[in-house]
Amino acid sequence: MAATVQDAIMLFGDSITQMGWSPGGFGARLTDVYCRRFDVLNRGFGGYNTKWAMPVLERCLEPQQNAPKIRIFVLWLGANDAAILPSRQHVPLDEYINNIESMVRLVRTRDESTKIILVTPPPISEAMWAAQLKENDPAAQLDRKFDTTKEYAQSVVAVAAKMGVSVVDVWDRIWTAAGARQEALSQYLSDGLHLTAAGYAIAYDALMENIKEEHASLHYEQVNPTFPPWPELGNGV
Amino acid sequence: MAATVQDAIMLFGDSITQMGWSPGGFGARLTDVYCRRFDVLNRGFGGYNTKWAMPVLERCLEPQQNAPKIRIFVLWLGANDAAILPSRQHVPLDEYINNIESMVRLVRTRDESTKIILVTPPPISEAMWAAQLKENDPAAQLDRKFDTTKEYAQSVVAVAAKMGVSVVDVWDRIWTAAGARQEALSQYLSDGLHLTAAGYAIAYDALMENIKEEHASLHYEQVNPTFPPWPELGNGV
Repeated sequence: MAATVQDAIMLFGDSITQMGWSPGGFGARLTDVYCRRFDVLNRGFGGYNTKWAMPVLERCLEPQQNAPKIRIFVLWLGANDAAILPSRQHVPLDEYINNIESMVRLVRTRDESTKIILVTPPPISEAMWAAQLKENDPAAQLDRKFDTTKEYAQSVVAVAAKMGVSVVDVWDRIWTAAGARQEALSQYLSDGLHLTAAGYAIAYDALMENIKEEHASLHYEQVNPTFPPWPELGNGV
Repeated sequence: MAATVQDAIMLFGDSITQMGWSPGGFGARLTDVYCRRFDVLNRGFGGYNTKWAMPVLERCLEPQQNAPKIRIFVLWLGANDAAILPSRQHVPLDEYINNIESMVRLVRTRDESTKIILVTPPPISEAMWAAQLKENDPAAQLDRKFDTTKEYAQSVVAVAAKMGVSVVDVWDRIWTAAGARQEALSQYLSDGLHLTAAGYAIAYDALMENIKEEHASLHYEQVNPTFPPWPELGNGV
């Protein structure tokens, strides 16, 4: 049994979180810089919207003796909620907002000292995603719209302000990096929906910037290693 | 508090394990392929030998209610034990062998169903490592020898056979890939001691091959996701 030896960062989200340990992914980079300090937990669930993710989050936060303390909780959902009807993944905007708020409340109820960071879904490239869906068998119609995902992203920024938690606006960062041109999104999106290493780099940098500015004592440079560096060990240890 | 929702793979070792989430690292790749199946825990401690690591391992395996079950335990120590005197990191070969055996017994005592995989320390490039140490302030003398590390690596293979656990001979794999020429090790070693992405690729491939052959039911393709894939979710979920 793996005993709890250190605290944790939980990355909770959909496929964009789940794939965060692919080459250049933000999860792998966080695990690297927080090594010997915090464990970084992959709690990404491909395809999940906030409605499906809620009972999973309840499980992931179930009170348990000895469970690692969550120091930072990153919530990154919305890319699937913003799917348009008749997609089964679609969750109406007001319900999405309610679900994100409920999740924030749940995390707070479990441990009010956990720092919560909301992340906005990335922009959609409709041309790339339509091309991707055409290759499906059977071919599928476009089920994500640039403007809809933008609206969901903006609502996350509003929820963060309302509830007094941090927000990392990946939608805005990537859109700005792309010079506000859908054609230029191909550098940051692999298929119009998911991130490339360059897209993850933007997310990682924005997240670390947020931690440094708003939760400075939890920046990896400020956290002591759980077990001492070897030069501090005596020969008698 | 992060509740236990799935089992774990524990990677226990020194800096070569600790740095396993750097780009191309074996830890990042394992986390990626085992996502939604097993958590992969970074329990790498730079500079540690088996003597210093033993009390840490006891902490990491302390019996605790609800702690995640360790399905695979990877033990990769020896690169520091094989340092030569007067290095403080040096552990005599017979003591190193005893320590590895004690660690295997400890893991078994905690959970006899855990699959244990020993990994041999990689070969040393004396020229590269000497050059690296010269850049230290103050400059240091060569403290690792090719032949010594080879001997420690071979002893791990013998321990695995004696104790009936798996072994991944990274020493031999990298040495063979280098055509048994120290000059060619620069492709696999970043500084004569630590691994490049190409070195980690050899370790990852050898480890996955071992899991596939000797612990097939634990290969990531054989393990069901902890939470269902989204197409299986009903609208009522």
